Amino acid sequence: MATHKTLPGFRDFYPEDCSLRNHLFSVWRQCAKRFGFQEYDGPILESLELLTAKSGDEIAGQLFNFEDKGGRAVTLRPELTPTLARMVSAKANALPRPIKWYSIGENFRYERQQKGRLRSFYQFNADILGEAGPIADAEVIGLLVESLCSQGLQRDEFIVRLSDRNLWFYFIESLGFTGEQATGALGIIDKMERMPPEKALAALGELGAPDPAKTFQAITDFQQLPDVEAIAAFLSKMDLSEESHDKLNGRLDAWRELLDLLDAAGLNDFVKLDLRIVRGLAYYTGFVFEAFQTVGKGRALAGGGRYDDLLEKLGGSAMPAVGFGMGDVTLRDLLEEVNRLPRLIDKADIFLVYTGDAGFKAALGDAYALRRQGLRAELPFREAGMGKQFKQAAQSGADFTLVYGPEELAQGIVQVKHMRTGEQKAVPAAQLVGSVLALWREG
Amino acid sequence: MATHKTLPGFRDFYPEDCSLRNHLFSVWRQCAKRFGFQEYDGPILESLELLTAKSGDEIAGQLFNFEDKGGRAVTLRPELTPTLARMVSAKANALPRPIKWYSIGENFRYERQQKGRLRSFYQFNADILGEAGPIADAEVIGLLVESLCSQGLQRDEFIVRLSDRNLWFYFIESLGFTGEQATGALGIIDKMERMPPEKALAALGELGAPDPAKTFQAITDFQQLPDVEAIAAFLSKMDLSEESHDKLNGRLDAWRELLDLLDAAGLNDFVKLDLRIVRGLAYYTGFVFEAFQTVGKGRALAGGGRYDDLLEKLGGSAMPAVGFGMGDVTLRDLLEEVNRLPRLIDKADIFLVYTGDAGFKAALGDAYALRRQGLRAELPFREAGMGKQFKQAAQSGADFTLVYGPEELAQGIVQVKHMRTGEQKAVPAAQLVGSVLALWREG
Repeated sequence: MATHKTLPGFRDFYPEDCSLRNHLFSVWRQCAKRFGFQEYDGPILESLELLTAKSGDEIAGQLFNFEDKGGRAVTLRPELTPTLARMVSAKANALPRPIKWYSIGENFRYERQQKGRLRSFYQFNADILGEAGPIADAEVIGLLVESLCSQGLQRDEFIVRLSDRNLWFYFIESLGFTGEQATGALGIIDKMERMPPEKALAALGELGAPDPAKTFQAITDFQQLPDVEAIAAFLSKMDLSEESHDKLNGRLDAWRELLDLLDAAGLNDFVKLDLRIVRGLAYYTGFVFEAFQTVGKGRALAGGGRYDDLLEKLGGSAMPAVGFGMGDVTLRDLLEEVNRLPRLIDKADIFLVYTGDAGFKAALGDAYALRRQGLRAELPFREAGMGKQFKQAAQSGADFTLVYGPEELAQGIVQVKHMRTGEQKAVPAAQLVGSVLALWREG
Repeated sequence: MATHKTLPGFRDFYPEDCSLRNHLFSVWRQCAKRFGFQEYDGPILESLELLTAKSGDEIAGQLFNFEDKGGRAVTLRPELTPTLARMVSAKANALPRPIKWYSIGENFRYERQQKGRLRSFYQFNADILGEAGPIADAEVIGLLVESLCSQGLQRDEFIVRLSDRNLWFYFIESLGFTGEQATGALGIIDKMERMPPEKALAALGELGAPDPAKTFQAITDFQQLPDVEAIAAFLSKMDLSEESHDKLNGRLDAWRELLDLLDAAGLNDFVKLDLRIVRGLAYYTGFVFEAFQTVGKGRALAGGGRYDDLLEKLGGSAMPAVGFGMGDVTLRDLLEEVNRLPRLIDKADIFLVYTGDAGFKAALGDAYALRRQGLRAELPFREAGMGKQFKQAAQSGADFTLVYGPEELAQGIVQVKHMRTGEQKAVPAAQLVGSVLALWREG
C-alpha cells in the first residue's frame, strides 16, 4: 500500500510471526507457572507522573507521552515495574505474601532504531514482593535461568552476570562520594564498559571526585574482582570508616547467602559475579543482574534486580521487591541465530471435499458438527475438480479427508479417507460425526 | 496509593481477572482454529491518517491521538480493521486466498465511561478476505455464533441480527436520496432504535428528504419487515426504477443464498433478519450483523459485516472482505450475569515442607529438579512449624507433599505424602525426582 506504512520501530505480526510470538509467550507462561507465579497485567497507558517519578532520566527522554482528550498527561508505558508497584500498593493489605507475579505485555520506548531494539517490544516480567531475604532474589534468578533454558538455550549460550547496586553505592561512598554525586558516579560506572577510559576519567572529574585518577583506578580494580572472597580481601586493604566497613561486610554476608541458595538450586553454572553490571534504572537497590548471550552478538537478554524503596517512593507502604524483565526481540534474534526457533505446525484435522451444491451443503453441515466437537474441519469455498480438492486436502495437513460426491450422496454415505495409510471407509451419513470421532481417536 | 491511579476507563488485571481474561482469549483462539483461521496481530499505534481515512466521524472524535517525538501524527488504534487492510494490502500477492485471519488485541476509544464501555478493551476480530460470495459471510457468522456458544452462552441467550447495508443504500436511493445524503440517512437509520420518532423525522427533514413524513414512514415500515419474502412483497408494491429494481432484487438473491448456507451449517436458530441494524462505521458494504444478548441488559456483544471497498480506498488493490469484532467487556459482564463464568483453578502440583537450613536446601534443590520436569513445585520461603507448613501445603492444592525433616535427612530419604488419600511413602533422596514423577503419573 503506497500511503500507509507501519510506524518505524513497530511490528506487524503476520500469521507465522504471530505463532512464533505466541509460542515464546506460552513457554514463558508455563515456566512461570511451574515456579508458582501468578499472571497479572496492567494498562499500557498510565499517568505520566507514575512513570517519570522514579525511573530515572534515561527512560523519561524516551516516552511516548501526550495529553489525552480530558487534558491528562499520559504515556504509553516504557516498562511495567511502576504499574506493578501501583497495583500492589493499592491492595497491599489484601494480598498474601510473598506476592509472586508475572506478566507478559507490550512496552514502548522512543529510541533510535537498531538491531535488537524496537520502539514497541514485549517483555516477560516476573517479580517477588514482600520478601526481603536472598531467597526471593534466588527464585527470580532461577526463573530467569529456567525460562531461557525452556526457550531452547543451552548452558553455555548465556550467562547471568550478578552484581550489587548497594555494594557499589557503599563502595562509592567510601571513596568520598555522597548523595546525588554517588548516583551520578553509578551512572558513569554503568556505562564504563562501553566508554573509552579517558572519557570515564573526565566524567568522574566533572562530578567532583576528590582525586579522579585514583578514584578511576579504584573503580576499575573493583570491577575486575572475580568473587566474594576477592572483594573481601580488596576491602580489607582499604582504609574504611567503621560505618563503611559494616555496610560493605553486611552486603558480603548477603552475597554468601545468595550464592549458597543458587548452589542448592543447581543454578551455579548459569550465574557469575560481575561487578561491571550496575543497571541504568535509578530505583534499584541491592542485587542487580543481567543475562547475556555468550554466543553471537553478546547482547543482553534480560535484566533485573531488587527495588526495595520503590513502592514507598511512589506513595505506597514500604515493601521489599525483586524482579526481572526479559524482552522478546533479542531472545527471538538469538534463537534464530543458533537455529533453535521451533517449527510450528499449523494443520487441519479434517478436510471435506465435495461435488455440486448438494455435496457442498452436506459437507458444510458436517464441518460445523465436527467443529462443535473440537476438530479443525475445513472445506474449499469454491468447488474445484476432485483431484485439485484432494491436493488441497493433502496441503492442509488433515488426517482424514471426507468425500461428498454424487455417488456417496445417492447411497447416503460419506467416504472417510485416512490420509497417512490411504485406507478408505464408507460411513453412513447419519453416523458421520460419531464415526469420524472414533477413527480420530484411533489415530 | 494516594498519588497514582489507573486512568479512567482502563483496567488493572489482578491475577484472578487476568486468568479470566486469558480464559476468554483461549476459548476464542480454540474456536477460531477449529474454523481454520490463522492468528495475526498489528501494532496498537498507527499513523493517524490510516485510522481517519475511512472509519467515519464517530470514531475520529474518540481517538487517543498525538504527535510522537519524531513529529508523526499517530493514534492508538480504535479498531483493527484498517490495520488488517494495510497488512493484507502490503502482501496481497503473496497470500493464498481466501485469507482467513483472526486476532485478539487491545483497542482504545476515548468515550464517556458507562457500564460495558471502557476506554481500553480487548476485541476478538475474525475476517475473511478474497472471497466475495456469501459463503464467506456465512463462515464468519458461523464463527461468531460458535465462539459465543463455546464461551458458555446458550441458544436462547443471544441472537445475531442480520441486515444489509447495500439493500438499505439501494432502498434509500429509490426514495430519492443520493450520494452523501444517502450516507447521512443511513447514519440516522442506524440511530433510530434509540431516538424518539419526532427527532428522526426532523433529522430526515434537515437532510433534505423530499417528503420527510412519507420517507420516515417508508423507512420505519421497511425496518419492520420480518423476512426476505416480505421484503420482496414490499418492494414489488413500490414504484421503482428499473435500475433500483435490479439492484434491490440482486440483494434479495444474495440473501436467499446466505440464508441457505446458514441453514446448511445449522445456524438458523441463531440468526434473524432484522433491518433495524445498519452499523455505524462508514466502510461497510453488503451484509452487516450484530450479536445481542437476549437476556439481561440486551447489550450488543459483537458486530461486523462486509467491507468490499475498504482495501482499495486505503490505497491497496481491491479485495472483497467480511469480518466481525467481539469485545471482552460486554461478554464478561453477560457471563457473570447468567452465572456462567468458569471457576479457574490455580493450584500447585507438589509442595515441599522442611526443617532447618539443610532441609531447606535439600527441598530447594528438589523443587528445581521437579520444575525442570514440568511440575509446579512450591515451598515456603520462611520456615514455620511443620503443622503450619502442612496447612500451607493443603491450601496450595498440591497433590503431593514432600517432607524434609531432620529424621528424613539423617536416613537419606524423603517422605512423599499423597494429599488426597493421606498415604505416605519413604523414597530414597537420590531417587526422589523419578519416584515423584512415577507417583504423579499414577495420580
